[in-house]
Amino acid sequence: MGVVVSLEEGKKRPEASVEPLVRLTAADMDRVNALILSKAGSDVAMIPEVANHLISSGGKRLRPMMTLAAAQMCGYTGKGHVELAMAVEFMHTATLLHDDVVDESDMRRGKLAARKLWGNQASVLVGDFLLGQAFRVMVEVGSLQALGCLSDAAAIIAEGEVMQLAAAKNMATTEDEYLAVIRAKTAALFSAAAEVGPIIAGSGRDAEAAFRSYGTNLGLAFQLVDDALDYGGSSAALGKNVGDDFREGKITLPVVLAYRRGSDDDRAFWKRCLQDGGAVEGDLEHAIALLKTHDAITGTVERARHYGAMAKDALAPFKDGAHKRALVEVVDFCVSRVH
Amino acid sequence: MGVVVSLEEGKKRPEASVEPLVRLTAADMDRVNALILSKAGSDVAMIPEVANHLISSGGKRLRPMMTLAAAQMCGYTGKGHVELAMAVEFMHTATLLHDDVVDESDMRRGKLAARKLWGNQASVLVGDFLLGQAFRVMVEVGSLQALGCLSDAAAIIAEGEVMQLAAAKNMATTEDEYLAVIRAKTAALFSAAAEVGPIIAGSGRDAEAAFRSYGTNLGLAFQLVDDALDYGGSSAALGKNVGDDFREGKITLPVVLAYRRGSDDDRAFWKRCLQDGGAVEGDLEHAIALLKTHDAITGTVERARHYGAMAKDALAPFKDGAHKRALVEVVDFCVSRVH
Repeated sequence: MGVVVSLEEGKKRPEASVEPLVRLTAADMDRVNALILSKAGSDVAMIPEVANHLISSGGKRLRPMMTLAAAQMCGYTGKGHVELAMAVEFMHTATLLHDDVVDESDMRRGKLAARKLWGNQASVLVGDFLLGQAFRVMVEVGSLQALGCLSDAAAIIAEGEVMQLAAAKNMATTEDEYLAVIRAKTAALFSAAAEVGPIIAGSGRDAEAAFRSYGTNLGLAFQLVDDALDYGGSSAALGKNVGDDFREGKITLPVVLAYRRGSDDDRAFWKRCLQDGGAVEGDLEHAIALLKTHDAITGTVERARHYGAMAKDALAPFKDGAHKRALVEVVDFCVSRVH
Repeated sequence: MGVVVSLEEGKKRPEASVEPLVRLTAADMDRVNALILSKAGSDVAMIPEVANHLISSGGKRLRPMMTLAAAQMCGYTGKGHVELAMAVEFMHTATLLHDDVVDESDMRRGKLAARKLWGNQASVLVGDFLLGQAFRVMVEVGSLQALGCLSDAAAIIAEGEVMQLAAAKNMATTEDEYLAVIRAKTAALFSAAAEVGPIIAGSGRDAEAAFRSYGTNLGLAFQLVDDALDYGGSSAALGKNVGDDFREGKITLPVVLAYRRGSDDDRAFWKRCLQDGGAVEGDLEHAIALLKTHDAITGTVERARHYGAMAKDALAPFKDGAHKRALVEVVDFCVSRVH
């Protein structure tokens, strides 16, 4: 990440960072990582191979850090938050493994996708194993309420993925329909990851609702920024990993906006490329130009800022402190990635 | 099913049947079926379509009936057994959906496999959804011990499937290795389905261990008979659906036995057909002849009888009654399917 420059005024702002959150959760994250390694172990050698390939490929671990920070901020002093954070990360990893099969992806986080190395079969089954392990660990924690929160998320995520599959290649997708998909497939796990913090700490309904709202809205902002970045972000220029969604025919918010704001010719272009899968050389460049013309990336980032603001306000009732500041800064960090 | 004739003596024996179990659990199974329909529902139309396709295609529902009968036999009077039975059936259905993707199956229970109708993607994701729903319903029941039992099973089943995948096409598989696979992928769910009966009834460790042993051994017997039936059962003749395992290159106990008992020529044959995937027209007939020569089907059924006897003895300490008789008869029913 480079220095963030405010586009409007060109003056430097202090850069939002994930570092304060990383520092506050570092000791607990060491425990989470040790537990991850232990619970991804199996006498069946293929399981740790596949799991470690994905786990070690360097995701930011935002979700488990949220669980840890939320529990700490709520004054929790036990060790259940470490186990729940591990379960959250396993649920996320299982989803990535299954997503790669569903999307027929070749790459994941800059490495060959597990399905390309071990086959679709291993990706499906190791995903199932990690999900089973996640539930085992949650059961060990012994909080039925945390179990309910995370099993709700598991069902909702899968429902969201099916929803996305059913809506795929449909250019008539509205912004509301798209939001419903990402609310389920992305925001539900962010939401549960944050909410189990106050749940395990026994902080009561108000705190649960606040962290649920924080997680949901951060998840929405995070996904929308991801969608914008897939088209090059605010610079909206061709670069590394730009255009994956376009090539896979995924209809994301930038496209939904450009399609609605465009001319009939524009709409015919999007239909040919995404709905009919007829994109050819040069179409991605034209798509990026259309997104720029119709302020579709800017519009997507504006939406992300809106959900980010909701996330920050969800934590407003809590008194100031290092944890609150770190969680608020993560929102700005997620949104500022887009520059 | 025809009349069962004892091979040794040719005299008629009363036919073992699943009917007593069906009768005892009929009222509760109506509740399970209603719950299945409700929990397979979703605004995302593809979910009930895929789920109902598989659910309505007429499995015997042995596993949920075991949960219901075990709970009833242990004097349980609540309604949690209905929810747990539903969760067991959803776990089973999710496994079938993922299995079809892993095995690249075209057919399931005489109908086109879901993956042929809706694609691999829907099979993976609807399986995930059903698993999520299963856990949600288990959480509603509120028994951490039942949750632990079933989440253990979920992880073990997936581990067994990966084990099978890793061992696939390896003719050196031993009987013990094969047993370890089916103990995980098949027997673990039978075991958990039976054990949650005494768990929810609060019957204590001895009853739990007895039902766990009953379920495990019934599951092993069930799978071994399935393996024998895939080669035509005791008649070992070509018929409808015979040879699926052979065509898919699956190494099951009949093959493990025939391979070990056979000549070098026989072993070369099995290697060519199953390990190297080089089976041609006429090879299935030759395989069935080899299985007959080496008593490999009979040997497999003998093993199934052994585990069946263990299952029945596991229930021996309980006093006689309709439920115990029905559960014992199911063991004989499962083994007698092979004739």
